Amino acid sequence: MQYGIEPGSLILALDFGGTKNSAAIVHAGERTWRGLRRQLSPPKPDAKYDWATMLSLAHDLLKGQRPIAIGVSFGGPVSASRGKTILSHHVPGWENFPIAELLEREFAGPVAVDNDANVAALGEARFGAGRSATSLLYVTVSTGVGGGWILNGRIWRGYGEMAGEIGHLMIDPSGPQCVCGRKGCVEILACGPAIARQARERLEEEPEEGAILRKLIEGEHALLSAQIVNQAAQAGDELALTVMDGAARALGLGIGSAIVLMNPERVVLGGGVSKSGERYFEVVRKNARANCLPEMHVEVVPAALGDDAPLWGAVAMAGDLLRP
Amino acid sequence: MQYGIEPGSLILALDFGGTKNSAAIVHAGERTWRGLRRQLSPPKPDAKYDWATMLSLAHDLLKGQRPIAIGVSFGGPVSASRGKTILSHHVPGWENFPIAELLEREFAGPVAVDNDANVAALGEARFGAGRSATSLLYVTVSTGVGGGWILNGRIWRGYGEMAGEIGHLMIDPSGPQCVCGRKGCVEILACGPAIARQARERLEEEPEEGAILRKLIEGEHALLSAQIVNQAAQAGDELALTVMDGAARALGLGIGSAIVLMNPERVVLGGGVSKSGERYFEVVRKNARANCLPEMHVEVVPAALGDDAPLWGAVAMAGDLLRP
Repeated sequence: MQYGIEPGSLILALDFGGTKNSAAIVHAGERTWRGLRRQLSPPKPDAKYDWATMLSLAHDLLKGQRPIAIGVSFGGPVSASRGKTILSHHVPGWENFPIAELLEREFAGPVAVDNDANVAALGEARFGAGRSATSLLYVTVSTGVGGGWILNGRIWRGYGEMAGEIGHLMIDPSGPQCVCGRKGCVEILACGPAIARQARERLEEEPEEGAILRKLIEGEHALLSAQIVNQAAQAGDELALTVMDGAARALGLGIGSAIVLMNPERVVLGGGVSKSGERYFEVVRKNARANCLPEMHVEVVPAALGDDAPLWGAVAMAGDLLRP
Repeated sequence: MQYGIEPGSLILALDFGGTKNSAAIVHAGERTWRGLRRQLSPPKPDAKYDWATMLSLAHDLLKGQRPIAIGVSFGGPVSASRGKTILSHHVPGWENFPIAELLEREFAGPVAVDNDANVAALGEARFGAGRSATSLLYVTVSTGVGGGWILNGRIWRGYGEMAGEIGHLMIDPSGPQCVCGRKGCVEILACGPAIARQARERLEEEPEEGAILRKLIEGEHALLSAQIVNQAAQAGDELALTVMDGAARALGLGIGSAIVLMNPERVVLGGGVSKSGERYFEVVRKNARANCLPEMHVEVVPAALGDDAPLWGAVAMAGDLLRP
């Protein structure tokens, strides 16, 4: 039991993931799902499809029970204070969508919503790799690089609710152009597609190098992905190792800058690319340390909740709505 | 009257400035000093000298009255939680000095102490250019570049009490070597001595340029200072303008990075170099804007309290000790 909430009270957690929608229910104060449904989206989903899917998953789980609170993770910019999605970079139709109001009406319970990086950060802080830390930077590296701050146990959103954009921290003014229009951002040097791009460039520039990687993709550069580059690196391919190290270095430098500015107790690293093995993590740590002052505390640990981090963060946000 | 404190209760504010010691008293809740004393230090002061000077200034102001609380700004790293100075980079003898405990014993009141950037940040937030802002980054540019965060009305110190080190944020990995051992930090590109150094280098490299600046220093490169370079820039010296713009650009890029990560409502810029005029400020703002995402809020304003910011911040810290 938490905060005097009746035992058995259900919390509903929703994760609009862009390519996958997930819904889960949990009894307040418990740590195992009472029910969890995931559904992959079709190749070109829109907001209407995602919304209908999610309502169906949730009703399917709830079986007519009313949740006492609802937490929502959304894969795109959100105004948490207004309870609205701003847009999705992957799914059309989410512009200025009053998601909190509509969910409140649908399920008759209070709703908290935030972007996936902030929600996953809170999930890791409360239930995962960030437990016991009073301040935490969560960084997720996959198709992009996102981040979220937990300070004194709460999400730090910033004035315009845009804090934590470590993916667009500039670490090299002479670096490549980023999708944001600026140069040398962490994202354009460290995200999954950046790893694939850098591997392709090197394979083209150095025809004698990368034998293992070439074999894995059988000459098909279109098959290059961060995962395959890492697979080649793990097998000892020097070209792939150089590319992976470069991406880890860029990420580490960005994390070092964040430490210089905020001196958090812990940095939690999640997302698909972060699962690239011990060497990747060590290069991240080494460069984070190298890019802050020697006296500064540097603790970079792997995320613990995996794909469930946004759902558990949604549970935490929903629970916070019930605090007196 | 504040927090039920008796009218007329005195707060004692102390500022150990490295080259200058200042003490002031104010009635709780009031905004004008009841007394203020400043004393310049001799060329080579030590901690013992500064300590004795400060006690003498304070007793002189208090005339036997007991302060209800004491706030202290210290020009160097401090452990606020332990109430100890860590060291001073300018004055020997401050290593691990139990300043809070000794002041408590001396004046029989509770003591709060922090480093000057944090304390000035709080001063500007409560009484100066940061009023009404819910989050603020204070940046001071003089001999070095320091910073302090005020989030939700409180100093954000970070895990190891080292947050806010914007001076050692790396903005160019191929930049010059900083005193901290790393390359391309904001400080080595933007602080006062950096401006003097860059002007000297350019005067040496370009014998035809910098006529106005050369005239001002009468050929004595040892006379170069940020102030003189700015004076030449104000008078239209192209070489000096280039140097000032470069320093402002580096500072702006660093501020942009801080905005990307934390999205504060306001950035308050203080310190001697920040008083370099409207063009300087505009170059800072332009580069801060250029180095964060287009949707992000960028508000960079001049500090309002000048040399009094640490004393007013000390008053705010002392007042916070009395909150129920």
